[in-house]
Amino acid sequence: MEASAIDQQALQRGDRRALAKAITLVESSLEQHREQAQQLLESLLPATGNSIRVGISGVPGVGKSTFIETFGLYLIEQGKRVAVLAVDPSSPLAGGSILGDKTRMEQLSRREEAYIRPSPASGALGGVAQKTRETMLLCEAAGYDVILVETVGVGQSEYQVAGMVDFFMVLMLPGGGDELQGIKRGILELADALVINKADGDSVQLARKARQHYNSAMNLLRHTSFWTPQVMTCSALKNDNIDAIWGMIVDYYFQALKADAFASKRARQNRDWMRQLLNEMLLQKLASNPRIKALLPELEQRVEAGGTTAYAAARQLIALL
Amino acid sequence: MEASAIDQQALQRGDRRALAKAITLVESSLEQHREQAQQLLESLLPATGNSIRVGISGVPGVGKSTFIETFGLYLIEQGKRVAVLAVDPSSPLAGGSILGDKTRMEQLSRREEAYIRPSPASGALGGVAQKTRETMLLCEAAGYDVILVETVGVGQSEYQVAGMVDFFMVLMLPGGGDELQGIKRGILELADALVINKADGDSVQLARKARQHYNSAMNLLRHTSFWTPQVMTCSALKNDNIDAIWGMIVDYYFQALKADAFASKRARQNRDWMRQLLNEMLLQKLASNPRIKALLPELEQRVEAGGTTAYAAARQLIALL
Repeated sequence: MEASAIDQQALQRGDRRALAKAITLVESSLEQHREQAQQLLESLLPATGNSIRVGISGVPGVGKSTFIETFGLYLIEQGKRVAVLAVDPSSPLAGGSILGDKTRMEQLSRREEAYIRPSPASGALGGVAQKTRETMLLCEAAGYDVILVETVGVGQSEYQVAGMVDFFMVLMLPGGGDELQGIKRGILELADALVINKADGDSVQLARKARQHYNSAMNLLRHTSFWTPQVMTCSALKNDNIDAIWGMIVDYYFQALKADAFASKRARQNRDWMRQLLNEMLLQKLASNPRIKALLPELEQRVEAGGTTAYAAARQLIALL
Repeated sequence: MEASAIDQQALQRGDRRALAKAITLVESSLEQHREQAQQLLESLLPATGNSIRVGISGVPGVGKSTFIETFGLYLIEQGKRVAVLAVDPSSPLAGGSILGDKTRMEQLSRREEAYIRPSPASGALGGVAQKTRETMLLCEAAGYDVILVETVGVGQSEYQVAGMVDFFMVLMLPGGGDELQGIKRGILELADALVINKADGDSVQLARKARQHYNSAMNLLRHTSFWTPQVMTCSALKNDNIDAIWGMIVDYYFQALKADAFASKRARQNRDWMRQLLNEMLLQKLASNPRIKALLPELEQRVEAGGTTAYAAARQLIALL
């Protein structure tokens, strides 16, 4: 595939085929494609950034697919174009992904105003998150107004998604076992909102109680930013309170603008991401040195066992560069 | 100062003067001293590790000094030797530190069984935390049984301390303003215990209530490790419940041993620290290249402003190496 084969004008007009081709280019791990993808991204960059980026996490069974389907259809009703991406580091190499499967969001996937892309299967530098970031930029250039980035929360994926979106929310279940109910440690720090889904039928009372619980937990936290994380309930199945969730995100957006925090958060995310990539590239360079490559595992083991200090080991490796 | 001037046998016998000289060597930023310090540490390494390392954090006014004084004296009564170190990145370059000041812990500092060292004023690679880690090893080689590492929680210092100790606790106030009451985001993830200090006089009821609140907040978190973070109350001033706090730490220690988690946590900490130092050294190497040094600020600005992608910028920098 040639970069020249990507019709940039068509992509910016919102042509789905051009977008799909560009994403395939971005996801390719061939060095030559990486080069072309970077050129394409650089040239599209001025057309990016005009979306609200929303991260959505939650354990399997919480109803993420139904939520995204209902939420996406609601956004389309409001005149928005919606892209659904996913970061799933557990997705098999073969290319399949437990997230982003279009059959999970049947109605949404049939809409012209929606674009659903499964999680990239793998990524070299920066991993799956890097590919998703680049895909997000392509979708913005193609005119999508809301980018939903989904994750199952495996490994570091919640941190990665929180680091690439404007607003990060975590879907929760109403009640259920203690195990299900517990908030993963570290999530309170990331979440701009907890949304208790499946607040319908017999679960309405449970959801209300869960909301109170989470609210008091959240209130124990110090909030230094302009935004106090919210706890909401909804039923994606019954299309209940979905409008209020969008209202909250719009509210966040305007508060962030007012506090001069919207652009600065994105700037910080970009800078942090660059530093992370820089670190990865440096470590890659280090590991490409055969003497270092041979020594690293042994030194790591010695450091872990307390046989040498971390400082001495690091210095020994650097000296070989 | 020569490394040979450090009497290693005397240090291992617990000689305070030898220990103080070794710490001064470790804290020196002269390249030649770094060399000697590393030799000393490597040769002492087999004699290290035989302590319980306890991190203590909390906002100013929570009574950290009084707590450490009372706690330290209690530990001495139990036959322990206690070292008190500090990580305070805000300490002035001049060498003074708002932490670790011996006059704050007057009784403890007069005891032969205690060694109190203020926060190092600065540190090159790895910062103040690196110096404190090395000092911790020296204190262990000198036979101290419990290492208390104090921090005010400025910047990343709480993460740094939590990353070098076996048990991390956060002191809290009983009630008070909402501002004071709020737990800093991210702390719930780090804390093995919250300890509500100043639970005396009129505040006993308040402290009990605060304990309930924090307990229910903690219970909302999922705990996958062998240890469920505890919420305790105490009064350092009245020497009330101090024994229970030590009991909790001992309990943690035995549970960790049983779960095979004690040594593996330290191994992980060592490995993570080595990786962090390696990153710092690589970035230092990068920054020592004059062309990169000239380009870095401009590229960072462009990345922040969305004028180029993080990936393209990182690659451009690496290409100059």
